[in-house]
Amino acid sequence: MSIQPVLIAGRWRESTSTTTFTAENPALGKPLADTYPVSAWADCDAALTSAVEAAAALRQLPAERIAQFLDRYAQEIETHRDALVEMAHAETALPKSPRLADVELPRTSGQLRQAAAAAREGSWAMPTIDTNLNIRCCFLPLGPICVFGPNNFPFAFNSVAGGDFATAIAAGNPVIAKANTSHPGTTRMLAELAHTVVRECDLPPGTVQLLYRTSHADGERLVADPRTGATAYTGSRAAGLALKTAADRAGKPIYLELSSVNPVIVLPGALSERSDAIADEFTTSCLMGTGQFCTNPGLVMLLSGTATDDFVGKLTKRFEAAAAGVLLSRGVARSLAENVARLASAGAEILVGGQPVAGDAHRYANTLLRVPGKEFLADPEALQTEVFGNASLLVIADDSSQAARMIDQLEGNLTGCIYSDTRGSDDRLYDELAPRLRVRVGRLLNDKMPTGVAVSPAMNHGGPYPATGHPGFTAVGIPAALHRFGMLASYDNVRAGRLPAALQNKNPSGAMWRLIDGVWTSSDVGSGK
Amino acid sequence: MSIQPVLIAGRWRESTSTTTFTAENPALGKPLADTYPVSAWADCDAALTSAVEAAAALRQLPAERIAQFLDRYAQEIETHRDALVEMAHAETALPKSPRLADVELPRTSGQLRQAAAAAREGSWAMPTIDTNLNIRCCFLPLGPICVFGPNNFPFAFNSVAGGDFATAIAAGNPVIAKANTSHPGTTRMLAELAHTVVRECDLPPGTVQLLYRTSHADGERLVADPRTGATAYTGSRAAGLALKTAADRAGKPIYLELSSVNPVIVLPGALSERSDAIADEFTTSCLMGTGQFCTNPGLVMLLSGTATDDFVGKLTKRFEAAAAGVLLSRGVARSLAENVARLASAGAEILVGGQPVAGDAHRYANTLLRVPGKEFLADPEALQTEVFGNASLLVIADDSSQAARMIDQLEGNLTGCIYSDTRGSDDRLYDELAPRLRVRVGRLLNDKMPTGVAVSPAMNHGGPYPATGHPGFTAVGIPAALHRFGMLASYDNVRAGRLPAALQNKNPSGAMWRLIDGVWTSSDVGSGK
Repeated sequence: MSIQPVLIAGRWRESTSTTTFTAENPALGKPLADTYPVSAWADCDAALTSAVEAAAALRQLPAERIAQFLDRYAQEIETHRDALVEMAHAETALPKSPRLADVELPRTSGQLRQAAAAAREGSWAMPTIDTNLNIRCCFLPLGPICVFGPNNFPFAFNSVAGGDFATAIAAGNPVIAKANTSHPGTTRMLAELAHTVVRECDLPPGTVQLLYRTSHADGERLVADPRTGATAYTGSRAAGLALKTAADRAGKPIYLELSSVNPVIVLPGALSERSDAIADEFTTSCLMGTGQFCTNPGLVMLLSGTATDDFVGKLTKRFEAAAAGVLLSRGVARSLAENVARLASAGAEILVGGQPVAGDAHRYANTLLRVPGKEFLADPEALQTEVFGNASLLVIADDSSQAARMIDQLEGNLTGCIYSDTRGSDDRLYDELAPRLRVRVGRLLNDKMPTGVAVSPAMNHGGPYPATGHPGFTAVGIPAALHRFGMLASYDNVRAGRLPAALQNKNPSGAMWRLIDGVWTSSDVGSGK
Repeated sequence: MSIQPVLIAGRWRESTSTTTFTAENPALGKPLADTYPVSAWADCDAALTSAVEAAAALRQLPAERIAQFLDRYAQEIETHRDALVEMAHAETALPKSPRLADVELPRTSGQLRQAAAAAREGSWAMPTIDTNLNIRCCFLPLGPICVFGPNNFPFAFNSVAGGDFATAIAAGNPVIAKANTSHPGTTRMLAELAHTVVRECDLPPGTVQLLYRTSHADGERLVADPRTGATAYTGSRAAGLALKTAADRAGKPIYLELSSVNPVIVLPGALSERSDAIADEFTTSCLMGTGQFCTNPGLVMLLSGTATDDFVGKLTKRFEAAAAGVLLSRGVARSLAENVARLASAGAEILVGGQPVAGDAHRYANTLLRVPGKEFLADPEALQTEVFGNASLLVIADDSSQAARMIDQLEGNLTGCIYSDTRGSDDRLYDELAPRLRVRVGRLLNDKMPTGVAVSPAMNHGGPYPATGHPGFTAVGIPAALHRFGMLASYDNVRAGRLPAALQNKNPSGAMWRLIDGVWTSSDVGSGK
């Protein structure tokens, strides 16, 4: 049995592991061929040492070099599309097309190119110049960034290719990637491409490093190590909060993307206007990718009445009629069953689904549950259990004031949606409920389901705790996502030749936006423009 | 004995305290007349409930209303200057003039006016608009902000008038102020003015609330309460870290400004060029305000040699010759003595000072200590003990490589300074040391002492842990300091009339900077400008 090597200090080398693991093909329920190491602390330690060297060297390089790396890496990913898709499909059972080949892979290379453009242009650093006092300020790279990727996007959130990786690198930092253990082979292939391009671009060897897995204790030690700059984590709440505790204790920033039930409120006017269309949208959004999205609509609020009963009937039929997709892993299938059971034991009625689908593949029947608003208010914590997968809970409020109280009980979420009619009959209700929902979610939507997180500068893929660890940051959207990986650095009376390029009088790219004496401009200091 | 009331829900009312405290006149070593309550949890609870109501109401008000409050409050502070200065002098022993009346009070009203301008103009919210996808994003107020102020600035960092207060309010949030217990009377007078202006401007009653003191346990409960939006704390490391632990566990943002020794490196060329001038600058900076500044230069690095010996002699003479100022409190005097002893027991030699000054006033002799670089490297933790007050440690490195190793052992600091000569003989050394220092400090200075924190948009009064709790934020400087108190809020496909003013097509003030399709502009959306 040969164990896959880890990528440390610019070399694929044997891990100091004591144990190993294999991934599984979730469509077959059978282990895949390759064996991967569970790294001991010595691997983490070596990666940190190399990352510190890389961080210092990267700070001295022009941003253009980093941009070239990101652009070339995007190109390599596209060149190796077929092999990547094949491997990701085997490890995740996500459809090859359109999902992996035509949606997620282009999104991934697109993000890398957006990150390259942000690095090249430099405005993310928010250079701020006070010419009167000669104080100048910008974000500088923070240092080695540990990235823990989730199971549900083998490319677009991959720890060695996804959004956190792209933005950490674009901000000038090295990355220590911890693979998601459900798709180590995809991660290895991506890291191989990244490594080749690191060499080709002559970046420091520790710019991109990869470990497959560590013990929980070593993971906590890694995020709290004095050499670590910050951590980005996307995944389960329990594991994320354990890392947060360790990072917080050490005073290290950690950006988390944890659970979210993404409440969707459908107002009565919208139902009477277009209930079929909304039922279609909801079913598509909830079952797409077998429901395994951070922004999956897991909780729907409705006001009781015959139109709602009719709507629930439509949803039930659609959930029954749709084929249940394959889940990402044995673990996802197990958690899904456990969390449906938790909702049921807290009082939710199972309308459809509620049991695994027989066969080798990890599948669970498309599941809808229902609970009255009064019961939701009696145990809001249990009834906000995230069910990661193809399931959703419908909560039926007696009236708008009960709905308002329910919203006030919501935890922080990534998204919140309100459907209202186009003729204005829902407007009063919207005005009553929207301000309450607004402060509990990172992104508020109208007449639109929450899945589909556009890589837009105006996106917020974040939200109040416990959706994330800090309500001021987004994990998607460039340049804002880069701010997570910068330190604010002021230069007071520093001599002109010693300033970083971004803060010198001359605009280094001619395109960088800088706030000079209160005016955002791409001109040089003192140009009078 | 009448106990001062607390300000809760728009009313000065009796506290639910079980115990009380008094402040002391540090110049006389005698208690002042007034008695203040130590609030029980019921006060905190009532303040939080009122603050939540205020937060919701403030979100609906135009920013202009908040700006008017801040402007009017600034004016009231100036109107009541003499009484405020009298009280602050009695409680802190800081000189009435120029310090309190001519420097700190105008700084305080100036900060409030800058905050008013930022609220009015609105650019702090960084409105970002993607017209193609119709996604729009900005910072919204985060909710009730708890502010814990320090002992050393009775006006400019006061929890009910200082920088944290001004920026939390300007971002649209209510403030629950916890007074510093060494100047409760000054804080009460300020809160009385604020309260009057809150009523005059018809702001929600819970916009400004004041508690004087709580138990440690209640303070920790306050910052972790689900109703709290965030906390700003300036003060001692131990108390700050206890609050941080509580806030972190609850997923609540907390912005800390803790200890900092503010390293100053004087290179050999600078010494040979202008050692008298530097000795004067250092002495002034270190002894000003009896050394009780967050950015006091507490650690000076020098390279060994006769010029350095000569410089040390100059400093010693100046420290001996200067009168020792009165310290802020009995507690500061006690900590100062303890921390000097801690440095001495870690191997530092006391060159001058090192003992209290006899008399009723709390005074400690101006103190200089010295330690060789080798000993510093043997116990860098103990030898970075912050000595808050009129004392500083000189560390003498054998050579530049030892100096570099010393810098690598520095904790995160607010500031770091390098003095070099003007003829270029120090340039090589600067290039060797500055990159190492850069990543350990929030503000890097050249040829200038760190005291004096200008309220500039390019200021960073922040720095890596443990100087603060997060390296991406500043406590001084507008608009950046407002970001601490905002939540990122995206609007996806939200109908035009439902957007906040900052995100509508029309620029609400005609002056607000917004990032529209990648261009910073104050034009309307679609104006083609």
